[in-house]
Formats: sequence, C-alpha cells, structure tokens
Amino acid sequence: MPVETILWRDARLYILDQTLLPLEERVIPLYTVGAVFESIQALRVRGAPAIGVTAAYGVLVGLQEAQPPGTAEALATVDRTVQRLSESRPTAVNLFWALERMQRVAHDLGPDTPLPAFLEALESEAVAIHEEDIQLCCAIGDAGASLIADGAGILTHCNAGGLATSGYGTALAVMFRAHEAGRRFRVYADETRPLLQGARLTAWELQTADIPVTVICDNMAAHLMQQGRVQLVIVGADRITANGDVANKIGTYGVAVLAKAHDIPFYVAAPYSTFDTALDSGKDIVIEERPEAEVVEAFGRRTAPIGVDVYNPAFDVTPAALVSGFITEQGLLKPPYGPAIAKLVGTQHHEIHPS
Amino acid sequence: MPVETILWRDARLYILDQTLLPLEERVIPLYTVGAVFESIQALRVRGAPAIGVTAAYGVLVGLQEAQPPGTAEALATVDRTVQRLSESRPTAVNLFWALERMQRVAHDLGPDTPLPAFLEALESEAVAIHEEDIQLCCAIGDAGASLIADGAGILTHCNAGGLATSGYGTALAVMFRAHEAGRRFRVYADETRPLLQGARLTAWELQTADIPVTVICDNMAAHLMQQGRVQLVIVGADRITANGDVANKIGTYGVAVLAKAHDIPFYVAAPYSTFDTALDSGKDIVIEERPEAEVVEAFGRRTAPIGVDVYNPAFDVTPAALVSGFITEQGLLKPPYGPAIAKLVGTQHHEIHPS
Repeated sequence: MPVETILWRDARLYILDQTLLPLEERVIPLYTVGAVFESIQALRVRGAPAIGVTAAYGVLVGLQEAQPPGTAEALATVDRTVQRLSESRPTAVNLFWALERMQRVAHDLGPDTPLPAFLEALESEAVAIHEEDIQLCCAIGDAGASLIADGAGILTHCNAGGLATSGYGTALAVMFRAHEAGRRFRVYADETRPLLQGARLTAWELQTADIPVTVICDNMAAHLMQQGRVQLVIVGADRITANGDVANKIGTYGVAVLAKAHDIPFYVAAPYSTFDTALDSGKDIVIEERPEAEVVEAFGRRTAPIGVDVYNPAFDVTPAALVSGFITEQGLLKPPYGPAIAKLVGTQHHEIHPS
Repeated sequence: MPVETILWRDARLYILDQTLLPLEERVIPLYTVGAVFESIQALRVRGAPAIGVTAAYGVLVGLQEAQPPGTAEALATVDRTVQRLSESRPTAVNLFWALERMQRVAHDLGPDTPLPAFLEALESEAVAIHEEDIQLCCAIGDAGASLIADGAGILTHCNAGGLATSGYGTALAVMFRAHEAGRRFRVYADETRPLLQGARLTAWELQTADIPVTVICDNMAAHLMQQGRVQLVIVGADRITANGDVANKIGTYGVAVLAKAHDIPFYVAAPYSTFDTALDSGKDIVIEERPEAEVVEAFGRRTAPIGVDVYNPAFDVTPAALVSGFITEQGLLKPPYGPAIAKLVGTQHHEIHPS
C-alpha cells in the first residue's frame, strides 16, 4: 500500500512530517500558508510530485486563512498565495506547474464567478491534481516493471517513493509493481547525504513493502557496481528539460557517470509534470543551495570545525546522454529525447486542459 | 606544523584520540596491548602509516605489560603481541609491515641477547619507524608539490594528513608543502562517510594550516568536477599491490572513475611501506567490513529503520589504470607501475635493512 503522504480531509490539509521518519510517524495539520511554506522549505514534505500536490492544497489553505469577502479578493488571495509558495523551493518544477494550474483555474473563472462556485472549483482542481498524481504513479510503475529482471540488484538514490508523491512514487513505483508481479530483487538505497532520504525514507518504504533493501553510504555505490552487484539504476527527477537533461537530488549525476562507466542502465522515472519544456537544457535550471548546517550539523552534532567553508547544492544535473530512458505514465521514452518529451508533454497538456 | 598524532615520551605511548576531533583534542595514554588494539580497531588512531607506527610502539607496550624475566620470554611476548595487533585491522599493509620489522629485529637479536640490550634495540627500531615516517612525509610533500598549480581546486577523500601519519601526512603533505611554497589553491574535502574523516580531520588540519578548504558531502564531488572546479585529485592509500592497484578508504574508487570521466589527474600519495609487492593485484586484498552502526547510527541517532540490511565496506580498490601517478618519497612513479614499484620497494628495503 502506498503511504499517505498528503491528506485533504474535512477541508483541512495534513502532511506526514518526513523529517521525523523513520523513528516517528507524525501527521501534522497545516493551517496557514506560512506553515505550508515552512513545510516545503524544511522538507517536511519533499519530492517533486508531493511538493506540487501540497502547494495546490496550499492555495486552498491561503483562501481559508484570508477569508476573502468576495471573488475579486479571493482571486487576489490566490495570486498572493501562488507567489508566496513559488518562493519555497526553486528546483522542482512540479511546484510551479501545480501552482500555475491552480492560478489558471482561478483566472479562467474570473472575479464574476460567485464565491462558493469559485472556491469549489479550486478545491476540485487541487483534488484532481492529487488524484491524478496517484494514477500517474501506478502508470509509471507499470511502464517500468518489466525492466527489473529476477535476481537483479537495483541502485536508487534519494527517495522517489510514495513519500515523494501522493501514490506509489516514481522510481519506487517501478519496484513496487515488479514486486507485486512476483519478481525477486534487492534494492541498494544510497543513504543520500546530507539529509539521508535514502536511509530514512526509501529504506522504510521498501522494508514496509517487504522488498529486500540494503542501505549504503553514497560513496559505496561505485564499489558495488565494480563487484557486479548492480544491474539497474532507477532514480526520480525534480525537473527534466526539453532535451532530456535531469535535475535531481545531489549525487545523481555521479551515480549516472558511474553507471555509464560500468555499463549499467540508468533510468529516470517521472510523470509529465516533471518535464519542463520551457527550458532547453540543464544549463538553465536553478540549483538550490541549502544551509551549511545540513552538511556539518545534520544530526545534532557538529561534524566539522567551526568556521570551515561548506558547499551544499541540493541538486545536480545529469546530461541526457547518460540517461538510458525515461519511465513515464505513457511508457518508456528512448532517445532522441527531444521529440519524445515534446510529444509526452503536448499530449498530457491537451488531455488536462482541452481548449 | 604537523600534528602530534602519536607520542612516545618517557617510555609511554600516547595518541591523540581522533574519534573526538574536531570538537575535542584529547591525548590518551595506552598502557596495555588491549588498549593499543582497541585504539586501532576503533579508529582512535587511523591512517595506514600512523597505524604502523602505533603498532610498532604497541610491541614495546606489550613488553612493559608482560614484564618478561628473560630474553626468551621477551621474544615470546613480541611474537604474541605481533600476532594480537596484526588482527586489529586487515587492510592497511603498514600495520603488518611495521610489526614484521619489530619481529625481525627481535628474532635477529635472538634469545641469547641480554634483556636490556634486547629491549633497547626494539625501542630504537620503533623510534626509527616513527622518525622515518616523518621524513617520508616531507619527501612525499616535496615530490608532489609541483603538481599543484596556482589557483587550482584539489579534491581529496578521507584523511591522508598529519593525523594519518606521524608527520605531514601523504596526500596533505603535498598540499602543505605547496602552501609553504606560496602556492594558492582550494581544497575540497569529501566528508567521507561513514566516519567523516574528511569533515572532521582533513578540514581541521587544513584550516589549522590556513589552507582554504571547503567541506562537501561525498556525493557532491561529481557536480564540482562537472562545473570545472576540480583540477587535481590527491588521495592516500592503505595498500598498493605490485601492479599499482590501490586499496584506500571506501569511495576512493568512485572518485577515481569520476576523475577519469572528467579528465582530471588522479594521484595517490604513499610511502614505500604502503606498497605490498607480495600481492599481485587488488583482487588479493582483504577488504575490511565494519559494523552496521557506523552507517546507521554514526551521529548518535538512528538514521534508518531498525532491522534494515546495511553494507559497510571500509575500503575499495582502485585499479592502477585509473591512477595518473604515485607520489612517493622517491618522486613520482608513472606507468608502467610494475617495474617502478618493484624498484621503489627494492631500494628502500635495501637501505633500511642492509644485509
């Protein structure tokens, strides 16, 4: 069963606080836009698709908080909330995609729509984004499951599981579906410094699903590959540009280079909402730099001398040339990626927003 | 100034407890062979050359502890202590090399040597191993300093500094000497999971020496290389086989593959005592596996679900083909490594143990 990462119940937004996992499973309510913003920025909710869904609900939270007297004020509230939440994190495109969807619905309705209908339509859109994400995860899992051979060793980096989405996840969806189909395999989970989403979250999800998983430090992946224990790499993505360059958790690029050097296929699992065809290539992606303390004080104990310089980029960019294929809800995309990505994004946009 | 990692003062062995760095600088006395064994195994003293020097003094500690009544008993004590300490860690060859040197001196003296002369000769040999290590470090530093260009970014992994030796270190000796020669450069220190010797020790040594240093997570190295911020990689070694394969801290192999992919020179700095010509290639090296807790409880807090599988190899093997050169006390070794290594080891053995 997928994890319930994000809940919308009785018109109230709740999230599972992922910073406390795996030691504690605590669901927290988010009553204000400030709380939604903080939860995204502090990674209480993380993973590109999950950030998108949370932000969509965040627009509803903004409306509840502001209590606008009329639709014109509600529209202004939507714009303000979208602006605020879009500043929470810069790299994952799903955030902007979901916020734009909410904003578009609001503006399509316009100030003359009666307030109850306006609010209802926005709630429906957020719920649609949420439900669509669940369906996309299943479809991604089905599209990739056959890549996993019986007895395979699979390396993954960070967490692209149910916790990163509102369903089965992306990279992990492939593993969940293969496992449900009776395939036996072992997953090597890079712990994923600095915040250990692999050790804390991926290991927890796979263990819960009874899929054999071994936690390793990030720097052990090359050694495993050299020993022939890894036959496949699957990761998620935070943003994929028109040419197929992939922004994902820091360390992904290194894994891709290592996979190439060992002739191991390297797949990226992501829904259409992670593809950003407005950007030509990875050079255009803004890479978030996060606080130094994540590196040198991540576990409540200082691990480097005071005053030392620290570099903490949260993402890196893997060039399309290192990607063996994209696992999407519409099946596998193979090179040349440009046309394949354009087709995927074009189709989906069309389905969701018929003109 | 190099750090005083190991002290032999008034016939007493002291070490700087490296597990407490950089937060606390505590020197601890080692009164028993058990304490020496524990200090090596628990990495209170670590780094191939430093382990060798400590083990040599450990033989003296064994003699003090046993208080043998005569030389025959002293000889037996040496054999027993050597056997015991050789089981403390399996990968770094300097441990076995130093213990064999002590044992050879003892057996060359034989049971008929008067006990005071026997003990004195062994103390002299341990001190000689220690002093020789200091000289080797300087010579390594001088041999490699010219590799560092002004303005370079240098990546290093783990700690191959003064703390890993009894002098300037190996990889860091090169940096210390280049810095003393007025070269300006920045070092990127891989934090080096699981035990963070890069963040804790390398950053501390370089900061103390006023060399600009930036701590990164291991998985950020590839991103730095991609950005063109690394012009040179220098690491130490725990054992180098006759063909030039290198066992070093886990993660070194990955760094070597990444360096190759980015056309960045990858150098290994080590004294002759780290070369083990008894082994043909890296396939013959025993790789130590260490406790799971180092990975999932290293920061005083559990970082993965209870019961999850963990893999914790302490070392990996970098094939000679990925090594641009060895920086040794006799200068740079370039391929083909077989003859160059044989010559280095042959020369040194001859100088130290004239037959």
